[in-house]
Amino acid sequence: MTATRTETDSFGPLEVPADKYWGAQTQRSIMNFPIGWERQPVPIIRALGVIKKACAMANKAQGKMDAKIADAIIEAAGEVIEGKFDDNFPLVVWQTGSGTQSNMNANEVISNRAIEILGGEMGSKDPVHPNDHCNMGQSSNDTFPTAMHVGIAMQARDVLLPGLRKLHAALEAKSEDFKDIIKIGRTHTQDATPLTLGQEFSGYAHQVKKGIERVEACLGDIYELAQGGTAVGTGLNTQVGWAETVAANMAEITDLPFVTAPNKFEALAAHDAMVMFSGALKTVAASLFKIANDIRLLGSGPRCGLGELILPENEPGSSIMPGKVNPTQAEALTMVCAHVMGNDAAVGIAGSQGHFELNVYNPMMSYNVLQSMQLLGDSASAFTDNMVAGIEANEPRIEKLLHESLMLVTALAPTIGYDNATQVAKTAHKNGTTLKEEAIKLGFVDEETFDKVVRPEQMIGPKA
Amino acid sequence: MTATRTETDSFGPLEVPADKYWGAQTQRSIMNFPIGWERQPVPIIRALGVIKKACAMANKAQGKMDAKIADAIIEAAGEVIEGKFDDNFPLVVWQTGSGTQSNMNANEVISNRAIEILGGEMGSKDPVHPNDHCNMGQSSNDTFPTAMHVGIAMQARDVLLPGLRKLHAALEAKSEDFKDIIKIGRTHTQDATPLTLGQEFSGYAHQVKKGIERVEACLGDIYELAQGGTAVGTGLNTQVGWAETVAANMAEITDLPFVTAPNKFEALAAHDAMVMFSGALKTVAASLFKIANDIRLLGSGPRCGLGELILPENEPGSSIMPGKVNPTQAEALTMVCAHVMGNDAAVGIAGSQGHFELNVYNPMMSYNVLQSMQLLGDSASAFTDNMVAGIEANEPRIEKLLHESLMLVTALAPTIGYDNATQVAKTAHKNGTTLKEEAIKLGFVDEETFDKVVRPEQMIGPKA
Amino acid sequence: MTATRTETDSFGPLEVPADKYWGAQTQRSIMNFPIGWERQPVPIIRALGVIKKACAMANKAQGKMDAKIADAIIEAAGEVIEGKFDDNFPLVVWQTGSGTQSNMNANEVISNRAIEILGGEMGSKDPVHPNDHCNMGQSSNDTFPTAMHVGIAMQARDVLLPGLRKLHAALEAKSEDFKDIIKIGRTHTQDATPLTLGQEFSGYAHQVKKGIERVEACLGDIYELAQGGTAVGTGLNTQVGWAETVAANMAEITDLPFVTAPNKFEALAAHDAMVMFSGALKTVAASLFKIANDIRLLGSGPRCGLGELILPENEPGSSIMPGKVNPTQAEALTMVCAHVMGNDAAVGIAGSQGHFELNVYNPMMSYNVLQSMQLLGDSASAFTDNMVAGIEANEPRIEKLLHESLMLVTALAPTIGYDNATQVAKTAHKNGTTLKEEAIKLGFVDEETFDKVVRPEQMIGPKA
Amino acid sequence: MTATRTETDSFGPLEVPADKYWGAQTQRSIMNFPIGWERQPVPIIRALGVIKKACAMANKAQGKMDAKIADAIIEAAGEVIEGKFDDNFPLVVWQTGSGTQSNMNANEVISNRAIEILGGEMGSKDPVHPNDHCNMGQSSNDTFPTAMHVGIAMQARDVLLPGLRKLHAALEAKSEDFKDIIKIGRTHTQDATPLTLGQEFSGYAHQVKKGIERVEACLGDIYELAQGGTAVGTGLNTQVGWAETVAANMAEITDLPFVTAPNKFEALAAHDAMVMFSGALKTVAASLFKIANDIRLLGSGPRCGLGELILPENEPGSSIMPGKVNPTQAEALTMVCAHVMGNDAAVGIAGSQGHFELNVYNPMMSYNVLQSMQLLGDSASAFTDNMVAGIEANEPRIEKLLHESLMLVTALAPTIGYDNATQVAKTAHKNGTTLKEEAIKLGFVDEETFDKVVRPEQMIGPKA
Repeated sequence: MTATRTETDSFGPLEVPADKYWGAQTQRSIMNFPIGWERQPVPIIRALGVIKKACAMANKAQGKMDAKIADAIIEAAGEVIEGKFDDNFPLVVWQTGSGTQSNMNANEVISNRAIEILGGEMGSKDPVHPNDHCNMGQSSNDTFPTAMHVGIAMQARDVLLPGLRKLHAALEAKSEDFKDIIKIGRTHTQDATPLTLGQEFSGYAHQVKKGIERVEACLGDIYELAQGGTAVGTGLNTQVGWAETVAANMAEITDLPFVTAPNKFEALAAHDAMVMFSGALKTVAASLFKIANDIRLLGSGPRCGLGELILPENEPGSSIMPGKVNPTQAEALTMVCAHVMGNDAAVGIAGSQGHFELNVYNPMMSYNVLQSMQLLGDSASAFTDNMVAGIEANEPRIEKLLHESLMLVTALAPTIGYDNATQVAKTAHKNGTTLKEEAIKLGFVDEETFDKVVRPEQMIGPKA
Repeated sequence: MTATRTETDSFGPLEVPADKYWGAQTQRSIMNFPIGWERQPVPIIRALGVIKKACAMANKAQGKMDAKIADAIIEAAGEVIEGKFDDNFPLVVWQTGSGTQSNMNANEVISNRAIEILGGEMGSKDPVHPNDHCNMGQSSNDTFPTAMHVGIAMQARDVLLPGLRKLHAALEAKSEDFKDIIKIGRTHTQDATPLTLGQEFSGYAHQVKKGIERVEACLGDIYELAQGGTAVGTGLNTQVGWAETVAANMAEITDLPFVTAPNKFEALAAHDAMVMFSGALKTVAASLFKIANDIRLLGSGPRCGLGELILPENEPGSSIMPGKVNPTQAEALTMVCAHVMGNDAAVGIAGSQGHFELNVYNPMMSYNVLQSMQLLGDSASAFTDNMVAGIEANEPRIEKLLHESLMLVTALAPTIGYDNATQVAKTAHKNGTTLKEEAIKLGFVDEETFDKVVRPEQMIGPKA
Repeated sequence: MTATRTETDSFGPLEVPADKYWGAQTQRSIMNFPIGWERQPVPIIRALGVIKKACAMANKAQGKMDAKIADAIIEAAGEVIEGKFDDNFPLVVWQTGSGTQSNMNANEVISNRAIEILGGEMGSKDPVHPNDHCNMGQSSNDTFPTAMHVGIAMQARDVLLPGLRKLHAALEAKSEDFKDIIKIGRTHTQDATPLTLGQEFSGYAHQVKKGIERVEACLGDIYELAQGGTAVGTGLNTQVGWAETVAANMAEITDLPFVTAPNKFEALAAHDAMVMFSGALKTVAASLFKIANDIRLLGSGPRCGLGELILPENEPGSSIMPGKVNPTQAEALTMVCAHVMGNDAAVGIAGSQGHFELNVYNPMMSYNVLQSMQLLGDSASAFTDNMVAGIEANEPRIEKLLHESLMLVTALAPTIGYDNATQVAKTAHKNGTTLKEEAIKLGFVDEETFDKVVRPEQMIGPKA
Repeated sequence: MTATRTETDSFGPLEVPADKYWGAQTQRSIMNFPIGWERQPVPIIRALGVIKKACAMANKAQGKMDAKIADAIIEAAGEVIEGKFDDNFPLVVWQTGSGTQSNMNANEVISNRAIEILGGEMGSKDPVHPNDHCNMGQSSNDTFPTAMHVGIAMQARDVLLPGLRKLHAALEAKSEDFKDIIKIGRTHTQDATPLTLGQEFSGYAHQVKKGIERVEACLGDIYELAQGGTAVGTGLNTQVGWAETVAANMAEITDLPFVTAPNKFEALAAHDAMVMFSGALKTVAASLFKIANDIRLLGSGPRCGLGELILPENEPGSSIMPGKVNPTQAEALTMVCAHVMGNDAAVGIAGSQGHFELNVYNPMMSYNVLQSMQLLGDSASAFTDNMVAGIEANEPRIEKLLHESLMLVTALAPTIGYDNATQVAKTAHKNGTTLKEEAIKLGFVDEETFDKVVRPEQMIGPKA
């Protein structure tokens, strides 16, 4: 038997665990939505703290709320921001589509904590009422979308971008390390003209660099907050300037450049900013998918693969094959990338399904976007530490493959013409011979010319 | 400071928490994959127990394993099946793509528990070795795909199908309850010819019935198990008949009709059965999306919507609008449905990405499929209890709308022709009058004929 | 100046090209929907012919329609089925979501052609009226969904299944051809234990075989036809037995096992059967993606890749690299597979979006499903003819790689234990030596035992 | 019998239609890829003309190509740009994944046309060779990705952005027209607090405005061109400065701000810019989906729906229900939006699948992106002309619903508290009475206060 406390809402009284701060609406949501195992992500909880603090600050400043009550709310909300009440947010993602119940969860926890601070009785709603005070000037319909944006912005700063920047730096470093290693290129998975391993890695690094830029560019719309739209976007029950003030307060609290959204009807009824942001995440996923695939294929072997890269060995690879080592970081990363693509599909559908003044796919959209961010940030970081940082070039193997390739013939084409060069390559392929041998035998060049023209080190850039 | 125990693998020794049964490979995975917040779902853990038990039974029966060791493994694996070791499976989804580390997690937990049962020292691998005994005749490459299928089959039986059947029964019951309520139909969201509310619900019920059948049909391929393919599908290190025996053992343990997969190369390198199964889940999601959308729109109001259905009131609906009640169960359900569609996209991508003898998107594919099943099963159940069961018809409203509709004119068309009937409807629309009034005024029918022909109760089925 | 003819509908007169049979509603649709470049696919047009013929047969048999008129409609509809009027169906996919305008297009073309047959004046609607006669007992709302199912069923028989069966046969043949070629297996893209090339291809063949079975299984629901539901599913303006009769007529006309759908409300308001069918197409796409990827990687080279397969050379591969030959059929096929996955996502969304008695995403859903079928069928066929049929094994290369692999050590594990076998493999890897050398040097086996145990030809199946 | 001409490539001679300009490689592609019905879109063909012209200009200026030959190529390429040779590009989308054959199609058509201009014999490759001259300094691997970007940039300017801007202007105009019409808001599809119809439309307009900005922002990366990377990104067979020169030439020819891509390895091996751009298109699709859904639901009726909007009547709506008019433009638009989401999924998958130095999903990616652009642009335009422009407010209906709503009680909450206001609304709902009646009866306010506080016209914005 757990000790309980009676809490009430307009549907009546309910027992809640005595050691928790939530109230009747939270408890009712637990009862009505026994769905799945996914709870509201922590960034949403912290973001609700940010909002409640910012609004109490504004209400106090405007003289709408008693300073003592406001200060208690500000203190309690601050504790939510610090993570002291993470375990007081038990609600799942699959609840009311507006996130109303998570907003009320915040209102209930903060009001009860504020009551406690002020020496009152939890559950009494006195002197701090979850709706009249904690939700003053707010509606779930503007609060939860604001929490989504604030949570995403914090997650970008704290998890996603650090992970991507770390990966970018590591790829750049490898590109520099490998800048003098000339290797065979591959197009259509077939042998092609040479490039340096450093050039190959520069492409990876550039992909990640652009990914970071795309995420940053899409954050612009995320910094626009719905707060102040209240129930349907009109700002009913607020005062002129409220929206601007609370956005400024949130910017101050988080040190992120939040502003009020220019059109609150759009901000409540649509979440296009998140759909677009998710598209940027999907683009990052496409980039990382390609990079991880390349690295594991270039590192395939150890004896029967391409074998150009030596990948770090992190753990035993097989429960049956002794001594096997696998590119497991690439596997975790590509699983993440495919998963992020699925999340993006879900977010796009949800974003299209608003009705009239509200989109009611809020918790699902933020769950998917935040999960994608966490996974991309974490796996970019793990992939850097446990894979990229330890990659070495297998230079003897690279050298051997380079000189066997028939596609060095491309350097001959400007001299002897495309059709003749084709004949050289095809003949060498058929006979298992070298290009030089056949080019001379076919009478298209002499040895000196061949040696002057067909030089891999001159094939890795435009002519000066 | 947590007390620790030293465990070893081929990469060396590692400290693990003394109160846990896992070994070095599990611990190493925790260190190498700090990615995301999603752990291996419980059905996978339990399914690994099923496999380890079934294999030890077979190894004992074939005389390959000492009976004492086998019995200890069988006992330990049985405890995993019962859920006693759920908290000893700490690994995340985003690990080795073959699920090798979760297989080793099972091997390590079970071998240490078996050692304990036999009075040995945990971590000593003596007398029970995680690879040589717990993994005997197995590879992660056949074991984890088997765990995926076993886990899905159990989840279908225990969560998904019960939820769908409950919803189907409730919709059928409503269809029967509402069978005499004639209402206006709507096509293109516009007024159309009438039908009964019971007929409308019969469509919903039929959708769910077909969904159940589709899931059941796709379970056929799920019952086919990869176990016995070992490393690459050949069955290396097993004996003829092993695959059939362990499948039979798993069928016995779970009371589900498992059989050995007819082609193990396909069973390891592809997961088409799961891609197809996910397609069935997506189809169920499409069905439930439509049903939930209809119900919330038919229940829209209370005063400014369609208002044909009275939906149950489960909780306060708004933090700002007093007295508001919302169709929140439809919201949770449609969020789930959109999410399942995203999962399906991810599963399809992953399923296409096998390389050579192995697909390495295993934990991600099973996570997504199991999550979709949990969400659909749970939300179908919650939607039934908290929404469908409590729906009432707003009969006065339904009656009023029915008789205002212009589309009853369709019943006139066989009598006066399509073009004349069009003129009647358009004139009534323009003048805000009734069909009867205009039909007579235009001289197409007399009153008696009109009253005989235009009778909603005769418009709800083919003519006898 | 093109000669025109005046046609009318309830919105008034319109000029249509004199050499075309369509009427005012078709022309109006051309004017109102200048969207995109995608027209209704031919299978839909032919299927509309099937429906109109089947309905006229039923109407004649029931005595509801003058035999002369019915016969003219039957003749005209027969010509549509034969493809004589394909160029009289100019409407795009992006029209009314019910496909009403394409249904009217069929009604108009067939009525005008029937008028012509009967010596009347085109555009006069006399003696054959597009609605009163050609659409008798029908609504677009049951007709177009029926056309979708009939078109898909014909497309499956005529394009998709022949393509898949051809591919399956070719893969089976290669599996047989290659049954004695032992090669190194690859898991995680890394060297693994051996299998035969025939076994590897047997996995591909099995995937395609299952794909065919999945498509066939999902055709069951496609054979169920909405016809007879008329406007909202009730069957208004039909007679008892009508639905069964027209389904039987369509079965007779097409020689496909069509039946009437058991619940017409579901059949109009949802298209779950198509969502599920599309899921089967996506599963086929996932299979073919994997097969094509494997084949191009196994055929990578000619000198710097895996090089186990010699792929047919079909065309010059590069505009700049002379002599380059690429696995272009694999590229076309994987592009198709990714595209089919996109189509499936679109179909799932559309299928979820029905409102009340009708889903209005019909032409888009059928366009996507039919396109997926055409692409999969065509590319399976081209891939067979221009790729699979010509694949040869590069046996010297395969042999060389096999014997270099370290994963043959797996055969040693049951003899010397997993941990010792690991040491052998790791030492040989480090020293660049052979397994045998190190196993003996480490004292785990003698030469005789090694030679007896480590034999690739005994590693490709369970022990007898 | 069609007259033919003999053309040759390195695989030998082939007959091509005498009245066409293409050569052997084009003809071979027709033979090898009988897949589907989708040809290379026109923007790709025109873009290839742009590239060939720009390169010939550069080759002439650098003195690498005989001026006479260069001028002939420039003239011929100019004709391709003008569309004179659209019917000489017969190749399907499902070909070589690099688009090599479409590049060669351009080379062959332009070289033959240039030969013709110079009085030579078509098929002779003299004096203009398709590879040595038309492809000078180019590879398909940089050319086709460049064509994709150039084609998309032109399509954005010519089709997509004009369509979106037209829609935006129309929505803005309606927002202004409707600015004084106060209506009930709806959240969760349930009655909520009021707003103006103009505010509601301002949300739609803002969505489209942001969509335009997102497309424009993503065009930045599209303006970066791969040309100059040649085979693998190194720029082999070009000279320093070539890439910059040809990009400048293309900018001049098209009047679009093209620049050379900063990293050519990324530009060939990945198409992240297109994945991101497609994400912007999906975001636009999500916006338009929401807008179209709202408009058809607000216009539902005419007698049994919400009925707040009067939608234009464009065509007969039903083949069975006389006088029915449907929101068909919304249906075409939402079909387009769902289709665009599918295209985006396909593009994301394709974008992730590059291998080493090349992504070989080019024609499929550009087909999907260009189709999405065409469909969104066209349907935005048609939706504007045939739907938005003609929307009228049904003011009596709007007024009636507004005053019946219970959610006006929200204005009371700041005065009497959330809990009391809830009681008022619930009692009125239960009794079917007015808020005012119950508020006074319950003793929470007097009549005067109620009338002062509950005024819809004061509920549509923050307090001054």
